Amino acid sequence: MRAVALGGGHGLHTTLCALRKLTADVTAVVTVADDGGSSGRLRSELGVLPPGDLRQALSALATAEDGDALWARVFQRRFGGSGALAGHAVGNLLLAGLFEEVGDPVTALDEACALLGIAGRVVPMSVDPLCIEAEVSGLNGSDEPSIIRGQVAVASTPGRVRRISLHNARDRDAEPQACAAAVTAVREADLVVLGPGSWFTSVLVHVMLPDLRDALVRTAARKVVVLNLVPQPGETAGYSPEQHVDVLRAQAPELRVDAVIADRGSVPAPARLYRAADAVGARAVLADVADPSVSGRHAPDALAASVREAFGIRAGRDGA
Amino acid sequence: MRAVALGGGHGLHTTLCALRKLTADVTAVVTVADDGGSSGRLRSELGVLPPGDLRQALSALATAEDGDALWARVFQRRFGGSGALAGHAVGNLLLAGLFEEVGDPVTALDEACALLGIAGRVVPMSVDPLCIEAEVSGLNGSDEPSIIRGQVAVASTPGRVRRISLHNARDRDAEPQACAAAVTAVREADLVVLGPGSWFTSVLVHVMLPDLRDALVRTAARKVVVLNLVPQPGETAGYSPEQHVDVLRAQAPELRVDAVIADRGSVPAPARLYRAADAVGARAVLADVADPSVSGRHAPDALAASVREAFGIRAGRDGA
Repeated sequence: MRAVALGGGHGLHTTLCALRKLTADVTAVVTVADDGGSSGRLRSELGVLPPGDLRQALSALATAEDGDALWARVFQRRFGGSGALAGHAVGNLLLAGLFEEVGDPVTALDEACALLGIAGRVVPMSVDPLCIEAEVSGLNGSDEPSIIRGQVAVASTPGRVRRISLHNARDRDAEPQACAAAVTAVREADLVVLGPGSWFTSVLVHVMLPDLRDALVRTAARKVVVLNLVPQPGETAGYSPEQHVDVLRAQAPELRVDAVIADRGSVPAPARLYRAADAVGARAVLADVADPSVSGRHAPDALAASVREAFGIRAGRDGA
Repeated sequence: MRAVALGGGHGLHTTLCALRKLTADVTAVVTVADDGGSSGRLRSELGVLPPGDLRQALSALATAEDGDALWARVFQRRFGGSGALAGHAVGNLLLAGLFEEVGDPVTALDEACALLGIAGRVVPMSVDPLCIEAEVSGLNGSDEPSIIRGQVAVASTPGRVRRISLHNARDRDAEPQACAAAVTAVREADLVVLGPGSWFTSVLVHVMLPDLRDALVRTAARKVVVLNLVPQPGETAGYSPEQHVDVLRAQAPELRVDAVIADRGSVPAPARLYRAADAVGARAVLADVADPSVSGRHAPDALAASVREAFGIRAGRDGA
């Protein structure tokens, strides 16, 4: 089974750990809009793709493999202290050097996968660094929407995101392009998983690139959306689980989904979620997928079991 | 044949390239006293061994191997621009992370060799970063010797080095210790090559660690000293080739050498060099070893041929 997971950050890390329990052929399609921390410093200093989310995806797939995980540990190690390198993950620096040396980030990431002994692939959603802009309401008690620029600013500004737009950070006038390898992976997949993660800045961004959205619409893969366990203050404050599905539908009206996985304990009104899922052609799968030991995180084993169940579900329930 | 080269910087790089033409079993024993550039910033910020000379040695051995040299190129790549990372070689950052993750620098360097497909080994002369202090004469027209601290200061201060001392940078009161793997490599070698390179700070430092000097004195290996092509302004201004041999003898009176290789065009008074070599038990081998295309550099092919010739020479000319 060829599985593709789209997302970024911790959410994607969890999905990849879950998918690796189902198949060795996992491709991660990773957001490249991060502008914070080590990644933000690297993209701003060197003009490279922000490497942090890519490194997290590599780490998730590497630690799932057998064998010596030394390089995976080196990748994840962060320099300490208070100097010029403090906070940089070694893997981020290595990826930045690899991007500069190789040129094409897809080839560079394939080399990183080989170093880490990864059977699957990690590809960026776009070969250009992207910038996110969000229209946010509820700031300063005003109904007037504000424009917030940059992933960190969006995630850390209170209020609810109403709408986001994506820009090519290297050339604001150029249309942001999907990475061809990401488009191909989605088209040829048997299973595609979207989410969990920062709903606007790590999940919905993937349906904002026309070629990637088109691939998601047309692929013959089973399509599964995994909802977050809790609303995220800077992005989805006050959003119910069903509203997460609604904004996905608003962003990609043509997209049919086969299953929406939600944690049973995180859905106050199941009937509403069933209706929202139905509106995108999906069945809602309520299961105990929260990790009891880490608040706000999915348990990879439980998520894998739910994804396996969801894989048996065909959109519209007419083709299965 | 087991060959060991001791040195640092460009000089060691050249020797390693030459030795790889003679045997696959090459161990580089590398100075760890550099305090300049990317290495100096890393040792000062993170407290790790200065990685630059180690990286150069890895690069010399890696590019001599067959196969894809991508990681060797990534190691040697330097970040540009004017930001916090400008001037850092990617390999230096990776080695620093590897040192922190693995703990033991010898194991870390073996892992780096494996990554780069190197058949030989690269080991530090000491597992602790070292500091060099030099007594320099001829500063400001005065005969009074001055104490200069740090490799960069020594190399960039005008005048002649009279004497150097080594200190453990982590604990000035602790005696600097030779790395056990370096001592073993010298003891078990068939051929040991010392120089070329910054004569005091990259070459003579190796005979200043008692265990390493003792191993050089006792090893059954043929011992070859390769002289520099030109005096180095901050270290050996005004030194003749024979004076390079004299200061080695002064630093390690018990050390017998089998051959001293010098470039024919760089020796104004061959008779004097023969006498100086004789005083350390060696035959002087004069040959055309300068690289005609790069001023001040040895040509690896010519150097390899001279080392091969020197390998047939036994100290004292009584045992061959």
